Amino acid sequence: MPALNKMRKKKDQYKEVEALKVTQEIRIRFNETDPLGIVWHGNYITYFEDGREAFGREHGITYLDVHASGYTTPIVKSECEHKLPLRYGDVARIETTIVDTPAAKMIFRYKIFDANNSLACSGETIQVFVDANGDLSLNMPDFFEEWRRKVGLPT
Amino acid sequence: MPALNKMRKKKDQYKEVEALKVTQEIRIRFNETDPLGIVWHGNYITYFEDGREAFGREHGITYLDVHASGYTTPIVKSECEHKLPLRYGDVARIETTIVDTPAAKMIFRYKIFDANNSLACSGETIQVFVDANGDLSLNMPDFFEEWRRKVGLPT
Amino acid sequence: MPALNKMRKKKDQYKEVEALKVTQEIRIRFNETDPLGIVWHGNYITYFEDGREAFGREHGITYLDVHASGYTTPIVKSECEHKLPLRYGDVARIETTIVDTPAAKMIFRYKIFDANNSLACSGETIQVFVDANGDLSLNMPDFFEEWRRKVGLPT
Amino acid sequence: MPALNKMRKKKDQYKEVEALKVTQEIRIRFNETDPLGIVWHGNYITYFEDGREAFGREHGITYLDVHASGYTTPIVKSECEHKLPLRYGDVARIETTIVDTPAAKMIFRYKIFDANNSLACSGETIQVFVDANGDLSLNMPDFFEEWRRKVGLPT
Repeated sequence: MPALNKMRKKKDQYKEVEALKVTQEIRIRFNETDPLGIVWHGNYITYFEDGREAFGREHGITYLDVHASGYTTPIVKSECEHKLPLRYGDVARIETTIVDTPAAKMIFRYKIFDANNSLACSGETIQVFVDANGDLSLNMPDFFEEWRRKVGLPT
Repeated sequence: MPALNKMRKKKDQYKEVEALKVTQEIRIRFNETDPLGIVWHGNYITYFEDGREAFGREHGITYLDVHASGYTTPIVKSECEHKLPLRYGDVARIETTIVDTPAAKMIFRYKIFDANNSLACSGETIQVFVDANGDLSLNMPDFFEEWRRKVGLPT
Repeated sequence: MPALNKMRKKKDQYKEVEALKVTQEIRIRFNETDPLGIVWHGNYITYFEDGREAFGREHGITYLDVHASGYTTPIVKSECEHKLPLRYGDVARIETTIVDTPAAKMIFRYKIFDANNSLACSGETIQVFVDANGDLSLNMPDFFEEWRRKVGLPT
Repeated sequence: MPALNKMRKKKDQYKEVEALKVTQEIRIRFNETDPLGIVWHGNYITYFEDGREAFGREHGITYLDVHASGYTTPIVKSECEHKLPLRYGDVARIETTIVDTPAAKMIFRYKIFDANNSLACSGETIQVFVDANGDLSLNMPDFFEEWRRKVGLPT
């Protein structure tokens, strides 16, 4: 019943895959904060990268893994929403997960929680696959399909 | 005819105010580029700030002007879309303008063009007004209403 | 025999206090590397700060501890020597220790070792004490003398 | 009289070449300042690079010029002394010049002046020449000798 399967898949599309969620601790550096004493908003993009890297190490899909497969995955969009400030010395945690999409993209979502477990920041990045010739992949690369299978995502 | 006026205003809401657009040149620094030889995506947030600051200097609404009025304007959301890479040594230009909104917010939009005049990146930031007590302003602060009048925005 | 004591002290002055050495692991971020694929030299100053902070947490002399005593400790000099490059994904370690000096200064020395235990970088920072009025302390502040006693440095 | 010539050269060695000095204006960014409201000390390394790049553009010896000659010039040492703080919004100027040395090195010196023309920071960077094979040049590369001739330095 491929139609049913398709329906199921459609329903789950663009959902965060909770089972793959990876948590990473970060400690706010002095030079990441601004004259207001709070983290300068642009630095959250670095924290997102910390989260994405932790995800990659945990699930075998770091930048270097991707590169070894002959691809780069430039970020084409990033988004960041700030709820609460983080301050110098704070220990926060980033929860990172991937979004299940049939598109030839890697979509990560991030949530950063402060020491009180309150949501400080959430965000998303979208990456595309570019092959060794510098061409954009319109289809999922084989290595990524294989990775999806390995971690239990529908392919 | 206030109703008509309201209609006109509604139609223009959330539109970029072209008349206020400010252009700023940037030169890509070596340490803003990554091992792929292109600007690391998070650095565009700094360029947006460069554009917003140039806008502020041109139109009398810099961070320091705002601060002198007793407010800070933390960024609550930022968004960035990448179309083309920028490289070390490139001279790019940022076009920054404000979005006309009746909300108690400052919304800026950014377009970064490369030396060939192609769109490399576009984005948006949203700022709210926080008063000297640390409270979020639900209404536009007086100083901002006055500024809107001064630059010809409807109030 | 105060003269002898003075001699002993003089001999030890400006020596690194090995007993207080603190080791901190760092993981090289993608955005800390440059188009040559190696850490951009300016980022080592951040690593030194990571080391100094780890030292402060271990020995009760963080920036916040100092601040609580009514002082700030601006850096007046920093120095960095590069021996070997570090690359994205490398896990390095920073060894930080304080230098025993009779001057009203905090002098830290740093050594960063790569995964093969080879010295990648060494450096030094010098900080002075500035009191709540913004004045430079010509003598060691009481809180620092007390800290020196606590960790076993001659006072 | 080669001996005399040598003597003259020796006397001038390790001197800053005033005639080649290049001045570059910088505007202090919000995100370059820290919770004390002053530029975080590590950011001066970026300003030094801004100065070095301005020097390179003026005198035809940018990173890209060097690269086109088949060399890279990694920084092996940097040093930075802070005299006065710079703050957000300050417009400062960097004076950069090269040091005349017979060694196979590029040594730059930097002075950063605040808006009152007071010295805020001074520093030095030392670069070596690494050829396309990754080997350190023990002698000045031809392209650099040629450049020295062009700008009037003894060769």
